[in-house]
Amino acid sequence: ERILVSTQAEYTAAAADIEAGDTIVLASGEWDDFELVITGGGSADAPITIIAERPGDVILTGQSSLRIGGEHIVVSGLVFRDGFSPRGEVISFRVSAKDQASNSRVTQVVVDGFSKPDRYESDYWVGIYGSNNRFDHNHLTGKTNKGVTLAVRLDSEESRENNHRIEYNYFGPRSVLGSNGGETLRIGTSRYSMFNSNTLVAHNVFDRTGGEVEIISSKSGGNVFRGNVFLRSRGTLTLRHGDNNVVEGNVFLGGGTDYTGGIRVINRGQTVRGNYLEGLRGEAFSSALAIMNGVPNSPVNRYVEVANARIENNTIVDSRRVAFNVGADEERSAAPSGSIFARNLMSGLEGEAFLEVYDDVSGIAFSGNRVAQGGVADELASLTQAPVAMERGENGLLYPTAPELADVGAPRDLRVVSLDEVGVDWYAKPGERTDFSSSGRVFEVAPGQGTLAEAAMAAKDGDVLALAAGDFIVDRSIPLEATVSIRGAGSDATTILFTRPSLFELREGGELMLQGLAIDGELAPDSVGNSVIRTTIFPIQSNMRIAMDGVAVRNLAVNKSFNVLTLGKNTLADRISIRRSSFADITGTIVSAAAETEDYGQYNVEYLDITESAFARVGGPLADIYRGGRDESTFGPNVRIARNALDDVGLAATNGTGGSIHLHGVQIAAVEDNAVRASAPFRVVHTVGTPKTAITDNAFAATGDLILEELIFDGEHRASLSGNVFGDGDTQ
Amino acid sequence: ERILVSTQAEYTAAAADIEAGDTIVLASGEWDDFELVITGGGSADAPITIIAERPGDVILTGQSSLRIGGEHIVVSGLVFRDGFSPRGEVISFRVSAKDQASNSRVTQVVVDGFSKPDRYESDYWVGIYGSNNRFDHNHLTGKTNKGVTLAVRLDSEESRENNHRIEYNYFGPRSVLGSNGGETLRIGTSRYSMFNSNTLVAHNVFDRTGGEVEIISSKSGGNVFRGNVFLRSRGTLTLRHGDNNVVEGNVFLGGGTDYTGGIRVINRGQTVRGNYLEGLRGEAFSSALAIMNGVPNSPVNRYVEVANARIENNTIVDSRRVAFNVGADEERSAAPSGSIFARNLMSGLEGEAFLEVYDDVSGIAFSGNRVAQGGVADELASLTQAPVAMERGENGLLYPTAPELADVGAPRDLRVVSLDEVGVDWYAKPGERTDFSSSGRVFEVAPGQGTLAEAAMAAKDGDVLALAAGDFIVDRSIPLEATVSIRGAGSDATTILFTRPSLFELREGGELMLQGLAIDGELAPDSVGNSVIRTTIFPIQSNMRIAMDGVAVRNLAVNKSFNVLTLGKNTLADRISIRRSSFADITGTIVSAAAETEDYGQYNVEYLDITESAFARVGGPLADIYRGGRDESTFGPNVRIARNALDDVGLAATNGTGGSIHLHGVQIAAVEDNAVRASAPFRVVHTVGTPKTAITDNAFAATGDLILEELIFDGEHRASLSGNVFGDGDTQ
Ligand SMILES: [Ca+2]
Ligand SMILES: [Ca+2]
Repeated sequence: ERILVSTQAEYTAAAADIEAGDTIVLASGEWDDFELVITGGGSADAPITIIAERPGDVILTGQSSLRIGGEHIVVSGLVFRDGFSPRGEVISFRVSAKDQASNSRVTQVVVDGFSKPDRYESDYWVGIYGSNNRFDHNHLTGKTNKGVTLAVRLDSEESRENNHRIEYNYFGPRSVLGSNGGETLRIGTSRYSMFNSNTLVAHNVFDRTGGEVEIISSKSGGNVFRGNVFLRSRGTLTLRHGDNNVVEGNVFLGGGTDYTGGIRVINRGQTVRGNYLEGLRGEAFSSALAIMNGVPNSPVNRYVEVANARIENNTIVDSRRVAFNVGADEERSAAPSGSIFARNLMSGLEGEAFLEVYDDVSGIAFSGNRVAQGGVADELASLTQAPVAMERGENGLLYPTAPELADVGAPRDLRVVSLDEVGVDWYAKPGERTDFSSSGRVFEVAPGQGTLAEAAMAAKDGDVLALAAGDFIVDRSIPLEATVSIRGAGSDATTILFTRPSLFELREGGELMLQGLAIDGELAPDSVGNSVIRTTIFPIQSNMRIAMDGVAVRNLAVNKSFNVLTLGKNTLADRISIRRSSFADITGTIVSAAAETEDYGQYNVEYLDITESAFARVGGPLADIYRGGRDESTFGPNVRIARNALDDVGLAATNGTGGSIHLHGVQIAAVEDNAVRASAPFRVVHTVGTPKTAITDNAFAATGDLILEELIFDGEHRASLSGNVFGDGDTQ
Repeated sequence: ERILVSTQAEYTAAAADIEAGDTIVLASGEWDDFELVITGGGSADAPITIIAERPGDVILTGQSSLRIGGEHIVVSGLVFRDGFSPRGEVISFRVSAKDQASNSRVTQVVVDGFSKPDRYESDYWVGIYGSNNRFDHNHLTGKTNKGVTLAVRLDSEESRENNHRIEYNYFGPRSVLGSNGGETLRIGTSRYSMFNSNTLVAHNVFDRTGGEVEIISSKSGGNVFRGNVFLRSRGTLTLRHGDNNVVEGNVFLGGGTDYTGGIRVINRGQTVRGNYLEGLRGEAFSSALAIMNGVPNSPVNRYVEVANARIENNTIVDSRRVAFNVGADEERSAAPSGSIFARNLMSGLEGEAFLEVYDDVSGIAFSGNRVAQGGVADELASLTQAPVAMERGENGLLYPTAPELADVGAPRDLRVVSLDEVGVDWYAKPGERTDFSSSGRVFEVAPGQGTLAEAAMAAKDGDVLALAAGDFIVDRSIPLEATVSIRGAGSDATTILFTRPSLFELREGGELMLQGLAIDGELAPDSVGNSVIRTTIFPIQSNMRIAMDGVAVRNLAVNKSFNVLTLGKNTLADRISIRRSSFADITGTIVSAAAETEDYGQYNVEYLDITESAFARVGGPLADIYRGGRDESTFGPNVRIARNALDDVGLAATNGTGGSIHLHGVQIAAVEDNAVRASAPFRVVHTVGTPKTAITDNAFAATGDLILEELIFDGEHRASLSGNVFGDGDTQ
């Protein structure tokens, strides 16, 4: 029977009577707040089918979800967008703990931006339970909240050795989450990792899936990862828990993007064979290839030692690192054993360390490998090191031209699955992010009252507002919902004054670049939370960028805590960049990214760059960056503060951070070539992991010593210090 | 000319050419995001007029505002709702600093709930600038964000001695703001308080305008407050700064509501004459009549001493306090001088202190007063004290029956302006707030999966869900947007289990009462921020109530901080009440109202009552209440914790408060008759003002001493302690 339904009530009635072989057709249109449930007994010959009247024309919006129980059920053609699931999953292969799906299939379904508005409220977009299910040709993109995009769960007996197939899906961009829980795919959990999942993950494309340090987290045994393509994705495919997995014929193309990694090997009996990795920039845990040390007799949730691994015929080119014994420390003291590393073709970055060894590699048998370029650790000096001429094959990948290298590296016939082959053809794959000033439209704006607000509110993504010389009076907070550049005629010619507690309010989609203008706080009221730029009180799902170049900010002094930029809770800036700018007579903080104070490992800015700028009579710190807690799943925050001049910065009684710079839990920090006079000291607090802090070549006069703290690490502060010069008093 | 306009563009064109005598008629309908500006030169005979096609049928929604410049302009018939002003005001009597309105009028305009969504982002709904303007017969109700409802500003010379008239307006309910900035009317600021404003405030009704401690804050000279009616409004009419004001013929009817006050007198030459005050419950600064001490040679922003005040023929009945020398301390050492207190009729609460004196009253000449009931301070023993027979006059007010008292108290002909005379007749005045269980509808709900969520989401204000005995499984967070009661068949019969990090999510309009049921956290996931009840991440403008009676909560232990109730930023609970309930095996906090950590004097709960309940193995505190900062403009928080049993409470390492109860900056606290064993100590931190803390008749075994701190007050902790008994160890 084929039943067309147009309302939720009709659907419920139809689903209640469904029998094997029946098809329910959802009428084209928007289905709002639709919690779709289907369960029943189909059969291999006569499945139960739920389809869209026309694929892509059935849109589930608002608080909607899909749950599948029973067996031999097929769902296809739906689109989830403009809403979020009220449950733990958008698509669930179970209706309840007792009714899990088997032999069922979800295909040609789109989930686009269907994220919970609270960035830190967790869900899965897809939860696969039961057995023998297939998830194929789906399109999942734009998850902004916490939680794995697709999780395979092994909690119940029936869901182990499940033979699920996850194939030909398009996993679209996942932006930096700014905490743990940003994986795109996870199979199992540590608790059940002694069981085999036997899940096939094949021929999927992972396009810019950079939510956190793990793209894929395999936490069970017997899984096969074959023929997947990873494009500019930060992080790695990690064999985190579970034994006897196969990683074969996958292609990683990093495109030189920061933190792009390859495959991380832990546990026993892993096979990593015939993969191709190019343009990766990760190191340590995120190396192109990271073979880890383990914990002797490891508990299930720590690091089982690598044993009997076969790592063969992989090609790694134009990549930063291949690393052995990664994570070696007092606890992780067990080096790999019984393993083979053979016929791999490797080429690193010119003049940089490439193959690194952190402990004992005697348990690995090396043979037939070739290193074409890059530094090699002494322990691996016996590997053949010589340049290799390479050319691209028809599949677009690099291969050595010399016949004698024919059996080294990835196979010639490696198939690179294309974007056309994954997901659906009726829903466009996302393009590049809009750059500032990229639309080609430039609008001239005349000085006066109200002109700037009007123009900014009308601007579209990529537009430029060109402000003439003169004074611009703004008497409302300007809401920004697009990627907008505002250029003045120079910071000595164009001045913006504003009469509300903030000049710009960033909302969903709002990004701001300011260039060549002055901002004067003279007219601002004495209010609570004054800030030239601040985020809306509503949560913002998208990550944003904020840039200032050649901007003069002054007279933010009407009360005791007037900031320049304040990021609120539940917001994350991808990049904040300040250069060639000046800041004078300001009572508060220049960049406040310290709203996530719960110590859950969350934070508000990924990259912060402050360079070539001058700061005078600033009460608070230049930067107040906070990332608390013990989680290690993020690459950021990453801070660079270089070539600035600071005079009388951070000394206000209201500066609770005690520093002219305050970095708490920042993962990578470079503080270089700054000149500092009569200011509060720099303060850097390390929390978890292996933070990299370099404080180099700064000159300090009448300023206290660096304040360096380690909250968890037991030992001297690990910051690298060199070339800093301290004067001996006010007279210098 | 009379011009009908239907679009914003048509309006703009018409307004650009407007001339004296012209009328622009706004077409009926919704005008979204309409920033209406009108300026021009009307004349007394030929004003410029902006009117609604039909009064009340022109609705300004979204981000809208009204600005008036020029002279002789009249605006009427508009409604602002479903939005908020993007500016500092909704209605402004100026277009810019240079273009202020004069001889202009706004009448029959409604502003209903047109509040900024951020509770702490400030604005005025009405800002009156310029001179000789009239604001009459308007209806302003439901302001939830910070900032005075109507402000008269004297910043420029032309706006002083302005002769504005504010008459026959309806000021509707203004709920507790939970910080400073909740005044309904303010005239002037301390900075310009040496100038006369000469503003008339007459025949307005202030209905439940209880935003903060001041209903009206007069901060300038020469104002007249005449014939206004105050209904159940917390706070006072305060002559805060400025001299020679007149408060005459006003009627205050407190209805026995907490914190209702009358008139507070500061400064020189004030006249308080012929007012009627009944049913007021405020004391100290919020007494029915509070005559303050001043600061000798006071700076303009402190307290100018009372001199030459005339306080005559006022009637004060059924009220808690009349107080002299209020605020007397080392700084405020100047008692009133040259003043008259004559022919006032006063009757307090039976058996309670009534007339109080805190310093010297020799500068006040007392004559012809009568005290009918209530305790009188020794210094005033010479006042005639004797019962007075009274009856209600035709105006509904009480008058003595004895002819010899005819000239004592308020005049017989005092006119009480009625609700019909103020505001407009085409827009309904708000009724009473919906009580729990008041709709008369009761819905039976059967146990099982999904039944409770479905019923709760369908419930309307005042509905009751009656849960049968059995287990209710909830696999989504239940959003609440109405005042809903959920009753079980007893906490041993009806159990709710839930699989998401929270069971209930309170949204705008959501209030919850739970009775006779158990809540078990057994199935909840290990997530971030787990809480049985929590507020949405979006700001909530309305204040909410939450009640639990006969509820058993248990097994909130899946991770280290699982709370029962968590109030987030930008939310305020009017009342949280927990009684006859039990809480066991909980890792987190029972009531967390500690989200406003910026020390701006903001807080999350007004009244908290925890009584007759049992707590065992609770990791965090029963109550974590935080109100930081130095502001003194709020009555709350007000906490009562009485007759409870605590066993092993507050000892988790994750309890950062260090107490089994943590009260920070609470204004009134009664902690009584609790039995406490093997728990963290009670911790009470006093900040500003004169907090009243009573810790009485508690018994402690194997529990540390009280932790009492004063952050600002220089001296011993001011908590009142009595009857507390401490055991000497685990064996007791
Ligand atoms: Ca992770
Ligand atoms: Ca106030």
